[in-house]
Amino acid sequence: MKNILIIGCGLLGSSLLRRIHKKKLVKKIFIYEKSKSNIRKIKKLKLPGIIVKTLEEGIINSDLIIVCTPMSEYKKIILKINNFISAKTLITDIGSSKIESTKIIKKFLKRGIHWIQSHPIAGSEVSGPEHGKDNLFDGKWCIIIKEKNTLRKNLNILAKFWKKIGSRVVVMKAEKHDKIFSITSHLPHLIAYNLVKSAQDFEKKQSYGLIKYSAGGLRDFSRIAASNEIMWRDIFFNNKTNISKAIDLFIKNLNEFKKDINSKNNKSIIKKLIQTKKVRSKIIKLKQDIDEPDFGRD
Amino acid sequence: MKNILIIGCGLLGSSLLRRIHKKKLVKKIFIYEKSKSNIRKIKKLKLPGIIVKTLEEGIINSDLIIVCTPMSEYKKIILKINNFISAKTLITDIGSSKIESTKIIKKFLKRGIHWIQSHPIAGSEVSGPEHGKDNLFDGKWCIIIKEKNTLRKNLNILAKFWKKIGSRVVVMKAEKHDKIFSITSHLPHLIAYNLVKSAQDFEKKQSYGLIKYSAGGLRDFSRIAASNEIMWRDIFFNNKTNISKAIDLFIKNLNEFKKDINSKNNKSIIKKLIQTKKVRSKIIKLKQDIDEPDFGRD
Repeated sequence: MKNILIIGCGLLGSSLLRRIHKKKLVKKIFIYEKSKSNIRKIKKLKLPGIIVKTLEEGIINSDLIIVCTPMSEYKKIILKINNFISAKTLITDIGSSKIESTKIIKKFLKRGIHWIQSHPIAGSEVSGPEHGKDNLFDGKWCIIIKEKNTLRKNLNILAKFWKKIGSRVVVMKAEKHDKIFSITSHLPHLIAYNLVKSAQDFEKKQSYGLIKYSAGGLRDFSRIAASNEIMWRDIFFNNKTNISKAIDLFIKNLNEFKKDINSKNNKSIIKKLIQTKKVRSKIIKLKQDIDEPDFGRD
Repeated sequence: MKNILIIGCGLLGSSLLRRIHKKKLVKKIFIYEKSKSNIRKIKKLKLPGIIVKTLEEGIINSDLIIVCTPMSEYKKIILKINNFISAKTLITDIGSSKIESTKIIKKFLKRGIHWIQSHPIAGSEVSGPEHGKDNLFDGKWCIIIKEKNTLRKNLNILAKFWKKIGSRVVVMKAEKHDKIFSITSHLPHLIAYNLVKSAQDFEKKQSYGLIKYSAGGLRDFSRIAASNEIMWRDIFFNNKTNISKAIDLFIKNLNEFKKDINSKNNKSIIKKLIQTKKVRSKIIKLKQDIDEPDFGRD
């Protein structure tokens, strides 16, 4: 692999940029970024890479294109890419939901061009190139989406690339991906947004200065509820069928909890609370979170 | 203040013990602990204080008693305390909900004895004396509950005590306390338990190995959902009226979110997501959480 083009240089794009540069994975890294504010930041931070003014310049010189924009930009980008792309250049992305993107790629991308979707499970509540880190992907999972017509050769190139970035690679289908992440990521984000919204609604009525007392639990949720709104709107819309089902399951369980609480059903509550506890130790064992009480923050 | 008795020496009790000893706040610290396993741990860790075999021994020699047991133990403890207590000794506790405890104290505590409730907003998903820390209360709020007949003199003694422990003190009524914490603490915990339970239910059906991919959001909730089950059962039961209302508000909002997602209501979703983001910066500004992306854990 000689050159790479990164389209969209926010938190994820700039983290990839930093990592690719640090590990000297390619000769040239091209950056296409439409936000003037982000370009100013990239220049001020003296990040590596060549900022290209036109997509054409980046595309014709690159072996791999990584689309790191919100998913709602994909269609527009594809229509532009189509003008310059050849089958020699592989395309990937870092989007958090996959079925809807598959449809858009199938519908709009020029025939014979290879786009294999990726989803690195890495991110943060902050966004923008100033927050990128070269070790953002270290030890994190990266899901690569395999479709019927995905070429083994290209899959291997992409898997090799993500491993060099520091990720652990797993291959799955878009359907399975979107189901899994509706539960482990999309529902948790929605729930966090919804909890903070409910606290705000309550505060509007009562004016108790609630937020002052958020260390008792709410603060944990507020982190996730501070995530980028464009990115999350896209995820919620793109994976709406699975998320809707997840909401239904969640509400059903919450109503049962409420019933247990109101009837003081000791046995049922204790059983649930002991059961959920086990997930934490599993998560720690699987190295998906830090092994310190309170995230080690105090 | 000469001597203090701590009843129940788990995470909170042992943190108080460590702090009182470190700052040399009193001459003698008595510990009454009914769990043999906890007593073994206290001895093994060589924690300070005198372990008393009977409540009487601790009570008759102390100016302040701090009840650090689960709230479901209060009635039993009160009935024992009544045999030895005099009006000179002040009692407090560290329970997380207050209306129900007020009722129990009023109903069972001997006339003329002073129990002023406290609630230090400090804790962790881990429990037991081995996890206590002398700085657990540093800069954290401690709510002191004022009732109609609370003596100003005793309130001042207690406020002074918590300040020496490192807390910032605020005085309020039980009703206001229970409303505030139903939103900032009790609902968040219930939601976290419920989310993890829903993920478990989903996994039972699909066997996707979900937990492996929990870094996308679920892991944050799993921390809170690993909290002590006895403590949280007591809170859910004791504050059930407020928690029920909070659940109703939460479900109402979640159904609206679902509607917005399914109808792809861009304007409404973006408005909500931008709105909730503001709470995070408020929390950071009020020093209720660490000012680093991702809780600084990566």
